[in-house]
Amino acid sequence: MTDSRSSRTSVLHGIRDLRWETREVAAPGPREVRVRVRRIGVCGSDVHYYTHGRIGGFVVEAPLILGHEVMGVVDAVGEGVTRVRPGDRVALEPGYSCRRCAYCKRGEYNLCPEMTFMATPPVHGALSEHVIWPDDFTFRLPDTLSDDAGALIEPLAVGVWAARKGAVSPGQSVAVFGAGPIGCTTLQAAKAAGATTLIAADLEDFRLDLARRVGATHTINARHEDPIQRVKEITRGDLPLSHAGVDVAFETAGSLPTTRLSLAAPRPGGTTVLVGLPPDPEVSLDIVSAASREVSIRGVFRYANCYPAAIALVERGAVDLDALVTHRYTFDRTPEAFEFADREKRTSMKVMIDVG
Amino acid sequence: MTDSRSSRTSVLHGIRDLRWETREVAAPGPREVRVRVRRIGVCGSDVHYYTHGRIGGFVVEAPLILGHEVMGVVDAVGEGVTRVRPGDRVALEPGYSCRRCAYCKRGEYNLCPEMTFMATPPVHGALSEHVIWPDDFTFRLPDTLSDDAGALIEPLAVGVWAARKGAVSPGQSVAVFGAGPIGCTTLQAAKAAGATTLIAADLEDFRLDLARRVGATHTINARHEDPIQRVKEITRGDLPLSHAGVDVAFETAGSLPTTRLSLAAPRPGGTTVLVGLPPDPEVSLDIVSAASREVSIRGVFRYANCYPAAIALVERGAVDLDALVTHRYTFDRTPEAFEFADREKRTSMKVMIDVG
Amino acid sequence: MTDSRSSRTSVLHGIRDLRWETREVAAPGPREVRVRVRRIGVCGSDVHYYTHGRIGGFVVEAPLILGHEVMGVVDAVGEGVTRVRPGDRVALEPGYSCRRCAYCKRGEYNLCPEMTFMATPPVHGALSEHVIWPDDFTFRLPDTLSDDAGALIEPLAVGVWAARKGAVSPGQSVAVFGAGPIGCTTLQAAKAAGATTLIAADLEDFRLDLARRVGATHTINARHEDPIQRVKEITRGDLPLSHAGVDVAFETAGSLPTTRLSLAAPRPGGTTVLVGLPPDPEVSLDIVSAASREVSIRGVFRYANCYPAAIALVERGAVDLDALVTHRYTFDRTPEAFEFADREKRTSMKVMIDVG
Amino acid sequence: MTDSRSSRTSVLHGIRDLRWETREVAAPGPREVRVRVRRIGVCGSDVHYYTHGRIGGFVVEAPLILGHEVMGVVDAVGEGVTRVRPGDRVALEPGYSCRRCAYCKRGEYNLCPEMTFMATPPVHGALSEHVIWPDDFTFRLPDTLSDDAGALIEPLAVGVWAARKGAVSPGQSVAVFGAGPIGCTTLQAAKAAGATTLIAADLEDFRLDLARRVGATHTINARHEDPIQRVKEITRGDLPLSHAGVDVAFETAGSLPTTRLSLAAPRPGGTTVLVGLPPDPEVSLDIVSAASREVSIRGVFRYANCYPAAIALVERGAVDLDALVTHRYTFDRTPEAFEFADREKRTSMKVMIDVG
Repeated sequence: MTDSRSSRTSVLHGIRDLRWETREVAAPGPREVRVRVRRIGVCGSDVHYYTHGRIGGFVVEAPLILGHEVMGVVDAVGEGVTRVRPGDRVALEPGYSCRRCAYCKRGEYNLCPEMTFMATPPVHGALSEHVIWPDDFTFRLPDTLSDDAGALIEPLAVGVWAARKGAVSPGQSVAVFGAGPIGCTTLQAAKAAGATTLIAADLEDFRLDLARRVGATHTINARHEDPIQRVKEITRGDLPLSHAGVDVAFETAGSLPTTRLSLAAPRPGGTTVLVGLPPDPEVSLDIVSAASREVSIRGVFRYANCYPAAIALVERGAVDLDALVTHRYTFDRTPEAFEFADREKRTSMKVMIDVG
Repeated sequence: MTDSRSSRTSVLHGIRDLRWETREVAAPGPREVRVRVRRIGVCGSDVHYYTHGRIGGFVVEAPLILGHEVMGVVDAVGEGVTRVRPGDRVALEPGYSCRRCAYCKRGEYNLCPEMTFMATPPVHGALSEHVIWPDDFTFRLPDTLSDDAGALIEPLAVGVWAARKGAVSPGQSVAVFGAGPIGCTTLQAAKAAGATTLIAADLEDFRLDLARRVGATHTINARHEDPIQRVKEITRGDLPLSHAGVDVAFETAGSLPTTRLSLAAPRPGGTTVLVGLPPDPEVSLDIVSAASREVSIRGVFRYANCYPAAIALVERGAVDLDALVTHRYTFDRTPEAFEFADREKRTSMKVMIDVG
Repeated sequence: MTDSRSSRTSVLHGIRDLRWETREVAAPGPREVRVRVRRIGVCGSDVHYYTHGRIGGFVVEAPLILGHEVMGVVDAVGEGVTRVRPGDRVALEPGYSCRRCAYCKRGEYNLCPEMTFMATPPVHGALSEHVIWPDDFTFRLPDTLSDDAGALIEPLAVGVWAARKGAVSPGQSVAVFGAGPIGCTTLQAAKAAGATTLIAADLEDFRLDLARRVGATHTINARHEDPIQRVKEITRGDLPLSHAGVDVAFETAGSLPTTRLSLAAPRPGGTTVLVGLPPDPEVSLDIVSAASREVSIRGVFRYANCYPAAIALVERGAVDLDALVTHRYTFDRTPEAFEFADREKRTSMKVMIDVG
Repeated sequence: MTDSRSSRTSVLHGIRDLRWETREVAAPGPREVRVRVRRIGVCGSDVHYYTHGRIGGFVVEAPLILGHEVMGVVDAVGEGVTRVRPGDRVALEPGYSCRRCAYCKRGEYNLCPEMTFMATPPVHGALSEHVIWPDDFTFRLPDTLSDDAGALIEPLAVGVWAARKGAVSPGQSVAVFGAGPIGCTTLQAAKAAGATTLIAADLEDFRLDLARRVGATHTINARHEDPIQRVKEITRGDLPLSHAGVDVAFETAGSLPTTRLSLAAPRPGGTTVLVGLPPDPEVSLDIVSAASREVSIRGVFRYANCYPAAIALVERGAVDLDALVTHRYTFDRTPEAFEFADREKRTSMKVMIDVG
């Protein structure tokens, strides 16, 4: 249908070793879409591969293209594609599944054993001028969404999935431990699902201020206050102190202290959603107390069927993604963007790369 | 604990026959609260008893006090009451249940066979200066809620329950057939639960304008447009026309045409929630088409466990109840209020009585 | 991989006009399986196409192969097939979906707009010696399952889906209106889900006796007893008569009277599952009474993700499918089988064709 | 209504110090029932109070009557009682709640902050000839249930609740870690809910044999086999080894090793239900691996709304409780029963006291 494209690409060759390469991106095959990339959000996992060359069992053994928060414009479509047309602005859901196994058939495709997920070795990400992707994981963006917001549909999808796992419903109270990008999208997704008490806890006032801007009704700086005591004060109502606590607690920082807090924060019968995960496989936790209060502990692994909802929420103004972009780099300065994101975690929220 | 109170009361003695009486309201018993009533919203069911003396099998056979949308101030509390104190502004949930049957034990107390519900013969309502009520169905109001909003927690509870029955979730599309007070609270509850496409349909532009003010993204005047065709245009997206439709349709007008529309409007796999009910027990409907599209049809009978959520939603600004009050009468002019509400359905939304 | 096969096939050319043809069945393509058919169960829908040439909007306009309750042996597999091997005994799930639309992605593939379903014009069924089918809708059968049971996994899948839609849980009461093949598989699926009061209602003692054999605890012959009165007697317990009724009622006969009964039979808060559907699109029903009791009415359109569960239930002895086969015909006598099934509805349950 | 009764009672005065006392049991008050106790099952928690004088924060500070698995015959009823009559055989649900708080109203009464639960200091149990109890927590037993089964409705209620929390559905696979009384009732409840692969793991062949007798399809003696490896072999099916595992794992032994196993046993997207709890509040667990597989971890605290279902399951033969009674003592020999139950955990299942 179309010719291939020479595509300038940023490739990770080793720790802190990003190199420019030109790669040929073929014409899209049947039910595939080729996208001219415009925006790539820098995710903590990208930075971790950049600085450590691995995340847990996923090791960068061959040169790897990073980037999985992707917005672009359709450049060409393959046979049978009707969902999008050249010129359409789109967000890419960065993982696609086998579509045939028991998990895919049940709608739990995020758990498909044959998942192909961008920027997870050995699958390449999208830090390139062009990328090919299956049409069914390509989503048209309304005109009212900014390009940045298009790229950030990905972290919002995580938040939407977390809120779904927590079964957040109107009038509920939630606490989000960790007010980074995922904390802030989770908070907004919980708000969009009707939560009316929205508590954000973090160690950095910079992040808490931003959390408040996007919807937190209460913020807790854990350097200065005991988060559980504060959560109990905020949520107590008519019940005895033993029954104070949020309906749903979200762990989004991936640290042991926040994991502990997220298990302690829910009321009896409440829910803990583990969005981040502590770095060590084996952790010492008071799971006994949580279980004996019938707190449900639910893990989150990426997301499924969240892109349409995430896009609709931003379109209607229920979620503000633009507010999360605190720093911006041109494509040429990609290595600088990664260095900055690594160094300035405490003073930045989302670093965005403008691919062109 | 306290003496009884002489309470000026408006009593329905027959069709369009409201009389003033002074009734003695006793001191509250154990776990009871006595409330000085401030606001009573006039509900369609109140007006129907006023004009017809009955609703279906419920017949006014003895003088009956109307009014079940109630806000007031706690005047005295009985033994064992700790939830509220004299002086607290409160909303009353107007039905209380036996608390011991299988329904109550499962949390479905709205279906309790021994429900005691205000202004439903032979149970009196609250169009009186004072009323006694069980403490566990009495809810303290935050300072930020207006008195009017306190009374309208009741119709909002219906909307919250309807949205729960419809399992409305973030990013979904809904259509509300009938944009009266219940239509407008249902619409707002659906919005608070995350619906992003909110369609209101009615015959009156007056009501549709108000629906738009409180959150409708699309309005349909069924005098001028085919509602189902419009719903399909709005919701179609990438799928074929056969699969267009809203995720959840709400019938709130209690008429046969809106019931038909609410069955036709959902997409395959969607849900119809019948909040109102057509007047005739036996109705001719295309239930076959709905069922073969796996549309779930769910009825609503009052609500359970909705007051705290409803209050929290208004407090956080997720729902606007004040906007629904279009007309206001002093207690003295109660009969006039009923006449007006009956006559001016097309040009009024909620008529509020200021009891004092 | 393999050559094509000449396959003797029974083809419907018009009303009551089945003709023998030899059709060439190609080698299986990638991810396809070719099956040597052994058993085909005769379904009411097959008989209806045979006698009327149509079901609702589905009209037999070109010669059509009937049969969608299919068991056979894998004859050849295409590229990439690992789930089954030649020689495996298998059941075929007779519909496959597009795997890429929003419905497929959510796990609701039975509602996929591009569903390809056997023996539904213009898609051919399996009344042939060989059939080609996608591997992901092909299910290996344990040795302990009979060939007949393999074919009847299909109607059992309907029952499993109906029980899932009804959310039947341990200790509940159910009533099944219509004790034909689908009634009997639904009853058994409800029993397998833990229902302890299992009421079957029909007009034929022959069917009721069989229902009792496969698990009914109570049977009602609606010629002689008032089904609703009996349901209320059986289920009343401690509650007042207004609250008697089953937790879940299933309509499986597709008639107006059974549809009415299935709406009247549930207790307040219960569920009606419409498995069959009345023949007329517009029906007069007391939906008001059902809705005001908060009875949920749920339609069933085929099934999704039910084959593995259905096979496991038969394997463990929780469901008996062999008991449902009352009559058996060789492949040669296929037209006779259809005539018999049409004529002897009252004295037969499942007619099975032994294809060879 | 009736006089009080002198009631011979076994009272715990200190560790291993049970004394006989005669206590006066009053006439039942309004909505109360007085029961002549017939059977008391000895529960592990009773034995623990007997041997340690405490369970966690619950300390026996005053003389305490043990026993909460209770069956008896109604001796007298108070005002307003209609559910039961003198002479009725009944099981008592041993905890009653306030019926008015937010938890009770939502149907989660097991989490009520004012729960009154038998044999939990300072609330007395039922090791006495007579006991008074609220009528709404008193359940009539069908004639077909044995007295022993009546007492064991209590541990079955735990199993029914655990299966509900695990949302066990037809065709699923479960593993129960710990095959003691709670393990065996949980296994049977899971079977009644439709599980078709039922794995029991324990260290004692005696218990595993009994588990097999009541429904286990596979047993694992963890002294001789690696339970996780076996679980994966049994459940693997078509999926890769990473995706093998049960749908639901139940921990019922309250030990650290079984807690670890129960987190490792589920497939991705499966569920762990913690019925027992490890003795130490803080435990080191691989929660990261569970969460990243989206395994839901759910705690169980007693049960709510399970007695009717438990009784119905035994009545219909879906659960066998009599098989669990391995040893029996007369009331006189109560202290001996406790000594035996403490000493012979490995060779006994349920010890039953015949109160008379």
